[in-house]
Amino acid sequence: MKNLELDLGERSYPIFIARDLLGAPDLWCKYITSQQVCIVTNDTIAPLYLEKLKAQLSDKTVCEVILPDGEAYKTLATLEQIFDTLLEENHNRTTTLIALGGGVVGDMCGFAAACYQRGVRFVQIPSTLLSMVDSSVGGKTGVNHPLGKNMIGAFHQPNCVLADLSLLDTLPEREFSAGLAEVIKYGLICDAPFFEWLEKNITGLMRRDTDLLEEAVYRSCVNKAEVVAEDEREGGRRAILNLGHTFGHAIETAEGYGNWLHGEAVSAGMVLAMALSVELGWLSDDILVRGKMLLQLSGLPVAPPENMDVDQFLQLMGRDKKVLDGRLRLVLLKGLGESVVSSDAPVEMIVQVLRAAGVRA
Amino acid sequence: MKNLELDLGERSYPIFIARDLLGAPDLWCKYITSQQVCIVTNDTIAPLYLEKLKAQLSDKTVCEVILPDGEAYKTLATLEQIFDTLLEENHNRTTTLIALGGGVVGDMCGFAAACYQRGVRFVQIPSTLLSMVDSSVGGKTGVNHPLGKNMIGAFHQPNCVLADLSLLDTLPEREFSAGLAEVIKYGLICDAPFFEWLEKNITGLMRRDTDLLEEAVYRSCVNKAEVVAEDEREGGRRAILNLGHTFGHAIETAEGYGNWLHGEAVSAGMVLAMALSVELGWLSDDILVRGKMLLQLSGLPVAPPENMDVDQFLQLMGRDKKVLDGRLRLVLLKGLGESVVSSDAPVEMIVQVLRAAGVRA
Repeated sequence: MKNLELDLGERSYPIFIARDLLGAPDLWCKYITSQQVCIVTNDTIAPLYLEKLKAQLSDKTVCEVILPDGEAYKTLATLEQIFDTLLEENHNRTTTLIALGGGVVGDMCGFAAACYQRGVRFVQIPSTLLSMVDSSVGGKTGVNHPLGKNMIGAFHQPNCVLADLSLLDTLPEREFSAGLAEVIKYGLICDAPFFEWLEKNITGLMRRDTDLLEEAVYRSCVNKAEVVAEDEREGGRRAILNLGHTFGHAIETAEGYGNWLHGEAVSAGMVLAMALSVELGWLSDDILVRGKMLLQLSGLPVAPPENMDVDQFLQLMGRDKKVLDGRLRLVLLKGLGESVVSSDAPVEMIVQVLRAAGVRA
Repeated sequence: MKNLELDLGERSYPIFIARDLLGAPDLWCKYITSQQVCIVTNDTIAPLYLEKLKAQLSDKTVCEVILPDGEAYKTLATLEQIFDTLLEENHNRTTTLIALGGGVVGDMCGFAAACYQRGVRFVQIPSTLLSMVDSSVGGKTGVNHPLGKNMIGAFHQPNCVLADLSLLDTLPEREFSAGLAEVIKYGLICDAPFFEWLEKNITGLMRRDTDLLEEAVYRSCVNKAEVVAEDEREGGRRAILNLGHTFGHAIETAEGYGNWLHGEAVSAGMVLAMALSVELGWLSDDILVRGKMLLQLSGLPVAPPENMDVDQFLQLMGRDKKVLDGRLRLVLLKGLGESVVSSDAPVEMIVQVLRAAGVRA
């Protein structure tokens, strides 16, 4: 087992990483200080793990909210279901919410916890690789709007995260790969040795070897935790976590949330960001090739969808949060493990890189 | 003119109190740092003051959201209108929201600002006495749920508050009185000299004398600011601001939001809290009589509505946020200007006080 403490002053919390954490409540029950508990999950995860979790909470007053699975339901309307249940069951402000599921469940449950009675406690039990290495670290919560992803939300830190690797046993291959996109991202933006470790171990990781998984999740969380601890509210450095995300969000929005998985869109987006970095003369072509190779070995797409055109990209990127007063700010690489947030790429160069990647004019 | 600085570390902000502040942008324009501005107001206030405000913002890119007036619209559904406009107009995370209206507009605009792209700046221009002395100080924002008031929300501090007393010229008498309920509350909970000043000046205040109003708003804000600065997130002392509110929320919920104004419900609630304090032997009957008198002279109800019964009160009070693990926590008085949060009153005594106030069994 590995664990780390996210250092955010009075909002610090531990992340436990191991198999069979659900069955080891001694480790985590002290983070559930209330009598009332509300488990938020979805209709894919509930049949697999809900009863097991509830069995560990037999001394609590537990209610549950089972949401429909999918990014398409990450909306204010779905959020209301959580509030309805909390109020119908008379939950007070000492209650604890538990997110049992992937990023969508975590983001929605976390946002519900941020807003219910202006903030209650919550514990995250991520069920996907993506949510273990990404959304369970850093306190970003929220829902989508038809005009943009994650446009409504809050910063709200969990009280504890249980990354139970056994939950990955039931994760479909495509979603496992999507999680690897974010794992690889940490190597690219700030941890060259980790990138090299991934290149060496990608075959074992794809077989879901427990020790390798534990190491990959741990190093991803450590990397993200370091960035987040420096910049909890995303004023500066935290933005590097968005490598590939501005392109990626455009892809997700154009294709409809959930048709391209987040990690798949980020994978294609990272390749575009690397290509732009090469074009600016900041990154050697060699790194771009290695990055593409590692993503491909992880079962990820490395080219944008064929049905998008350049204008659609630019328009959807303009709506992303990473735009400051009209200039496109993008995360780019100055080398393996070295990232910068930059407005240096002129629109013409972005267009050129998109065209070179096969995007229609 | 009077002004005060709310001291909340990096979230500190000024409150300006005077007539004709809208016409003095030199004072406040530096708090609007963005090019994009979104004014949130309602259909009562818009015809009166929206054009005047917009005239001061002619160098900005301004859009507006005009909500239907009333507590009944303080919902997640109405909130979505604000998000829709912000996204349709491509507002980015540097945007500034301006709340032009009473408490409902302020709470919703503030909550929208708290959640839009996980938090943007906002400026509050309260148009009612209640919102000048209450909701514009302290950063509480949110919306109602059919099962409870202010159940969904966030703490989010404005960047500046303009309490423009000229806006009170158009405030209906009943709403002016409702605002006085909160003014009187500050005297009762923590400022005996202010209570005595109010007893002396209530006739002039009811005539809306500018100097008296300025003083009343200023001392209310100073009192609230002191309490809030000590306890921004309502862990402890801030709870005293809820004198009369647990009873009051029950009244508002039973009667339907907006049928009893918030201040009216709080007025009747404060009388019940004072009566309970007398019953506990903590408060002299004399203070109860003076408190009732001052509320009556302010045009406020001092008895609960006739159509409620005791069970309804208890049930609705049990849903209030001020309940901790099953025990009713109430704000009570130990003397004029001395308040405590206490679970000492047994349910039987609460029932007795309600019955004595004319509430049906």
